Amino acid sequence: MTISTIGRRIRLGLIGGGPGSIIGETHRIAARVDGHYDIVAGALSSDPERARQAALNLGIEHERAYPSWQQMIEEEVARPDRIDVVAVMTPNDSHHAICMMALDKGFHVICDKPLANDLAQAREIAARVEATNAEFCVTYCYSGFPMVRQARDMVRAGELGEIRQVHLQYVQSYLAAHDLPAGWRTESGRAGRSLVLMDIGTHAFHLGAYVTGLDVTRVCADVGSAIPGRTIDDYVSALLRYENGARGSLWVTNAAAGSEHGLSFRIHGDKGGLEWHQEEPNRLIHRRHDGFEQIITRRLGPTMSEGAQRSTRIAIGHPEGYLEAFANLYTEFAERVAGRISEGERDDRPTLFPGVSDGVKGLAFVDASVKSMAAGAWQDVERA
Amino acid sequence: MTISTIGRRIRLGLIGGGPGSIIGETHRIAARVDGHYDIVAGALSSDPERARQAALNLGIEHERAYPSWQQMIEEEVARPDRIDVVAVMTPNDSHHAICMMALDKGFHVICDKPLANDLAQAREIAARVEATNAEFCVTYCYSGFPMVRQARDMVRAGELGEIRQVHLQYVQSYLAAHDLPAGWRTESGRAGRSLVLMDIGTHAFHLGAYVTGLDVTRVCADVGSAIPGRTIDDYVSALLRYENGARGSLWVTNAAAGSEHGLSFRIHGDKGGLEWHQEEPNRLIHRRHDGFEQIITRRLGPTMSEGAQRSTRIAIGHPEGYLEAFANLYTEFAERVAGRISEGERDDRPTLFPGVSDGVKGLAFVDASVKSMAAGAWQDVERA
Amino acid sequence: MTISTIGRRIRLGLIGGGPGSIIGETHRIAARVDGHYDIVAGALSSDPERARQAALNLGIEHERAYPSWQQMIEEEVARPDRIDVVAVMTPNDSHHAICMMALDKGFHVICDKPLANDLAQAREIAARVEATNAEFCVTYCYSGFPMVRQARDMVRAGELGEIRQVHLQYVQSYLAAHDLPAGWRTESGRAGRSLVLMDIGTHAFHLGAYVTGLDVTRVCADVGSAIPGRTIDDYVSALLRYENGARGSLWVTNAAAGSEHGLSFRIHGDKGGLEWHQEEPNRLIHRRHDGFEQIITRRLGPTMSEGAQRSTRIAIGHPEGYLEAFANLYTEFAERVAGRISEGERDDRPTLFPGVSDGVKGLAFVDASVKSMAAGAWQDVERA
Amino acid sequence: MTISTIGRRIRLGLIGGGPGSIIGETHRIAARVDGHYDIVAGALSSDPERARQAALNLGIEHERAYPSWQQMIEEEVARPDRIDVVAVMTPNDSHHAICMMALDKGFHVICDKPLANDLAQAREIAARVEATNAEFCVTYCYSGFPMVRQARDMVRAGELGEIRQVHLQYVQSYLAAHDLPAGWRTESGRAGRSLVLMDIGTHAFHLGAYVTGLDVTRVCADVGSAIPGRTIDDYVSALLRYENGARGSLWVTNAAAGSEHGLSFRIHGDKGGLEWHQEEPNRLIHRRHDGFEQIITRRLGPTMSEGAQRSTRIAIGHPEGYLEAFANLYTEFAERVAGRISEGERDDRPTLFPGVSDGVKGLAFVDASVKSMAAGAWQDVERA
Repeated sequence: MTISTIGRRIRLGLIGGGPGSIIGETHRIAARVDGHYDIVAGALSSDPERARQAALNLGIEHERAYPSWQQMIEEEVARPDRIDVVAVMTPNDSHHAICMMALDKGFHVICDKPLANDLAQAREIAARVEATNAEFCVTYCYSGFPMVRQARDMVRAGELGEIRQVHLQYVQSYLAAHDLPAGWRTESGRAGRSLVLMDIGTHAFHLGAYVTGLDVTRVCADVGSAIPGRTIDDYVSALLRYENGARGSLWVTNAAAGSEHGLSFRIHGDKGGLEWHQEEPNRLIHRRHDGFEQIITRRLGPTMSEGAQRSTRIAIGHPEGYLEAFANLYTEFAERVAGRISEGERDDRPTLFPGVSDGVKGLAFVDASVKSMAAGAWQDVERA
Repeated sequence: MTISTIGRRIRLGLIGGGPGSIIGETHRIAARVDGHYDIVAGALSSDPERARQAALNLGIEHERAYPSWQQMIEEEVARPDRIDVVAVMTPNDSHHAICMMALDKGFHVICDKPLANDLAQAREIAARVEATNAEFCVTYCYSGFPMVRQARDMVRAGELGEIRQVHLQYVQSYLAAHDLPAGWRTESGRAGRSLVLMDIGTHAFHLGAYVTGLDVTRVCADVGSAIPGRTIDDYVSALLRYENGARGSLWVTNAAAGSEHGLSFRIHGDKGGLEWHQEEPNRLIHRRHDGFEQIITRRLGPTMSEGAQRSTRIAIGHPEGYLEAFANLYTEFAERVAGRISEGERDDRPTLFPGVSDGVKGLAFVDASVKSMAAGAWQDVERA
Repeated sequence: MTISTIGRRIRLGLIGGGPGSIIGETHRIAARVDGHYDIVAGALSSDPERARQAALNLGIEHERAYPSWQQMIEEEVARPDRIDVVAVMTPNDSHHAICMMALDKGFHVICDKPLANDLAQAREIAARVEATNAEFCVTYCYSGFPMVRQARDMVRAGELGEIRQVHLQYVQSYLAAHDLPAGWRTESGRAGRSLVLMDIGTHAFHLGAYVTGLDVTRVCADVGSAIPGRTIDDYVSALLRYENGARGSLWVTNAAAGSEHGLSFRIHGDKGGLEWHQEEPNRLIHRRHDGFEQIITRRLGPTMSEGAQRSTRIAIGHPEGYLEAFANLYTEFAERVAGRISEGERDDRPTLFPGVSDGVKGLAFVDASVKSMAAGAWQDVERA
Repeated sequence: MTISTIGRRIRLGLIGGGPGSIIGETHRIAARVDGHYDIVAGALSSDPERARQAALNLGIEHERAYPSWQQMIEEEVARPDRIDVVAVMTPNDSHHAICMMALDKGFHVICDKPLANDLAQAREIAARVEATNAEFCVTYCYSGFPMVRQARDMVRAGELGEIRQVHLQYVQSYLAAHDLPAGWRTESGRAGRSLVLMDIGTHAFHLGAYVTGLDVTRVCADVGSAIPGRTIDDYVSALLRYENGARGSLWVTNAAAGSEHGLSFRIHGDKGGLEWHQEEPNRLIHRRHDGFEQIITRRLGPTMSEGAQRSTRIAIGHPEGYLEAFANLYTEFAERVAGRISEGERDDRPTLFPGVSDGVKGLAFVDASVKSMAAGAWQDVERA
């Protein structure tokens, strides 16, 4: 699509995601899968030499293998073949500075979640996106799964009736051992006000909002650690109230020993329910009030909802996974950017990929949950 | 065992569970499975004629097919072949009166859950059990499943390490339609202060306590209805704190359209976790911190824990179900009563079946949850 | 039903199933569950003293705790309260003698599978059943599961269209170790011509016929052992042709190390397919040619087929298991016998429980499979 | 890896896989995922104009968007920046001609399965590979899944003991409707001697050999159609004997109405068994003779076998799918070709990707199965 629209691939510059970074490799594969991007520039590490070497190993040319993200943004601006998009996959506490500069210099931005380290920063980025009229994606990547979009479309089409209950889980064991792993996440302050909420809680929260189309308005949260004496948050269980009065719950932890990933939603409306588990992403369990449970499986063609059809590549029974879901965000972003390049005007239709306002909402939820824990009571969630 | 101990079967009198009652049929099958009981008396309905006819249809003799439970208790006391045990399977609001009289007249009692209609009644029954030195079972029947006992034994043996998280669910659709079904449950007051908590919430609550051996000390609950405008409770989601500091959550509803039964627990300790679903009761998922997930399946023999071995009848791969679990409570109660008959003294060792204090704890949890909802804050759970 | 029909329970005499016998305990529980039988006589072991003691332990009266099955049949015939039904749960090689004598003396018979030790014996029993006009059940117990009957009814109602493929499995590990376990099964000749076919192959074979209503007409079988050097059969894989031209396969082994039970069928017709696994017996997977897979779950009421409704006791989401399936055969047999007692005439309507002709067909399949193996070619299966 | 070895990406030319081809898109994504290839030339259709347009749409330059595969091979040979690898994704009946010419002109070849339309053609290709010393991959793509390699490594390490049973399934519904779909597969002769065996049977066959390291030496097959009157094969069920005496079975059909994909293996050795289903590819069921079943799940790091570690990209709990499995073959082929380019000498170590001899073996199995069906008896499988 992008090639046929603008006669070339989208030019992508990477910030972060150097050697040993799984999320960096994920972004790069996501950019490659559908052939819409050329990765032509990069500042892949905060260490200048590692940054340059990592870029060269990817086949990036010498002069665009930058020692720092500031230099990349500065120099790319001046090039005739400048990058179209900056992709940010650095630790949380640098997102704000990078996004602000990239936006100011006229780039479109793909930013890893969470958008920023706190709500105020997130609001600033959102305002700058508005001011610069840029395209912006926050990689709440689980929203890229075809069956998540199938669920979203089924809710919108009223197949569940009015939504009444929303239950979300994300259950890992990354921090289940007593000794914390090293890394920026566990350094004081770098992961924001609550590690578990910032790191994975926002994913689960977004998934609920993405599928139902509903915002959480109030929360009563139990945030802390499952490990006695630990000061870093690794556990949150929360009671939720959605804007339409629906009730919900959220259980998110990275300290459940023996767990793997465990991201799931279970949603019920008047007419039935949907359940999805990221670890078996090609199946969507549909419980029907007037009928037996059915298993909706990903496939090509019109049996699927429109959003699911647009998000899948291969025939029935051939599983797609996490990388394809992530690639869906990149591909949809490429189409959006190609539209901007070819037409010069902004496409105001809603996107399937999460945008900057989704990023702000995530931080607002973190903010309200932490306040609720401190107060031992329900707390309103600020609107984006 | 009972026959070899006392030379005859335990004599059982039924109260409630007449025509159309599923729970009545369940109790009766549970009493029959292992051949320890003779069902010799009954007052199966509050309607005298229906009561008598139902008893006759079960093969009970004419003179012991009673028109009322009061008459049954009065007349049985005077018989030389009087019943040993009264089994109560009436609506909640009659449990207190029946249990009090049966205890006063010297019978051992099996009472369906919840023990009573409120905490005060429950405490009175518990005191009477203490005063009369009777054997007493509350049929939190899900504790009878072999794999629940396997889980309990594994926790006790330290195989999970210190318990850190306890998550409980019971998700039905019994009340998912807008129109409430008829019956005593939905008549004002008859089901106690909260239908959902009394009816199924206490089951889930008990399951958590039974497996972990831990009591809930504080709760913050969202209790109400998932259906706008409904005044009967059909939804509770709660944050839990256990006596050892473990965190937990509970999601119980009978208004999740399309759901079937959905009773489950997921428990994590330092060393791993266990997950069990009542709908696949012969499997216990064991997530290990240092190893792959393993599936512990019910079977005969020493591979199983002691509690599981005592609770199962058939060889590996042959599924047992709900009726066998229920029968385990009856069989263990028969052994207990046989011991009393033959020896005259009370066996003070702990029972595998739930007792009167478990019944009291259930009502204390209901009480605290309702208060928490009213206050919008955490609430202490009274001790039994 | 039986009590209301004839004013008393059916009187049952047991042959075999003494101490340590799992199948004996299974038969007894099956007889008790629904309260239709009184177990009043027994010859539970070939050892006279063990036989008597085992009967006494079950609460059978002294004079009916028989030292041998011959004595039981002889003496019961003469009693005014003589047993109605003889239940046979001895090793295969004694079925023929016991059944013939019991039939000759006028008893109805429940016989464990396989009916006899070879096809000729089986045909003799069938002829004697015909001659004596007795009721006869062969406990192919897996046909008692509600969802098996659901499947059968769906096939009969044409919901799968014309049956095209039938695939059967029964995969255990009972004989997976190099050293054979002790017991009559592994003693030369006692288990018939092929241990694996007699012991579990006939179960799988019957299940296919029961669900589809189709007989196998030709077979090409690979029968032998998975363990080099073993002379007892523990493996059969077979190509099948059904009477309507449908193709099929069967894989049955008790030498698949690590396996549990693994009895399953998968059947496809023009319009879709059904799959069932005995280890999750309350679920029936329904693959639809024009729609998504649906999961049919056991429940009460008219959502189920007639055969399933008649075979189930408890509400949706409460699992039933193997013992209830086995009990279904006993209960249906009780109804049949009660009809005979009250009316004196034979009910010629088809039964849901397997009869003597099913037993003969099982032996015919064993016979043809063994011949096919010897010939290395397809073999016709003799008609019952 | 390839870039660091040879300073550039591998240059790839595509034959076949034009508009509407799912397998074409699959090959292209597989080539892109890890960034080792540049797709620089293509002859994507047998229609010259469609071929050129399809190539242009992929961003291939005008002069390398060829109207025919013959022209592509001829012209690429003469270029200084000639392609390194030809990837063939045309209908079966053209593989032989294309492969022979590509090999003769000195290209390395990735060829979709089955290798050729009959065994003789396959042998010719294999001989030409030998003569030209080219690298060659047959895309039995399911061998690219990490958990398939995990299984293979576990077998090799003796974790199952001696292999005793191998059971293979591939159950689709592609041809379940009475009316055959249009396309080359259902045109007479184009899919070889047996559509079902060529199209999917060879996949299942290869999977068994790949995991166990064992060849099938004898087969007794039931090959035909599940649909009365159909002359194209859509069903095969077969009895197998492996070179070490292990027994096996294979059930492969594309006429099981309602089925999706259903590729699976179940393998048992002395010490336990492994089961894998392509539709849930990140899980490997490990049944242990001395222990409970465990679920081995794909993850990064040394918990996995060496072959699995080399074949996976993302962290525990994030599902990989079919496209990543396919990409593994491309990536491993790129490494192999890069080694050739940089060193000039052949690396004779075994490859993880399937080679030309695997392609020959597949055709030998088809050949023996068809002969067995005609003879109604067991048939030897010719050695590759």
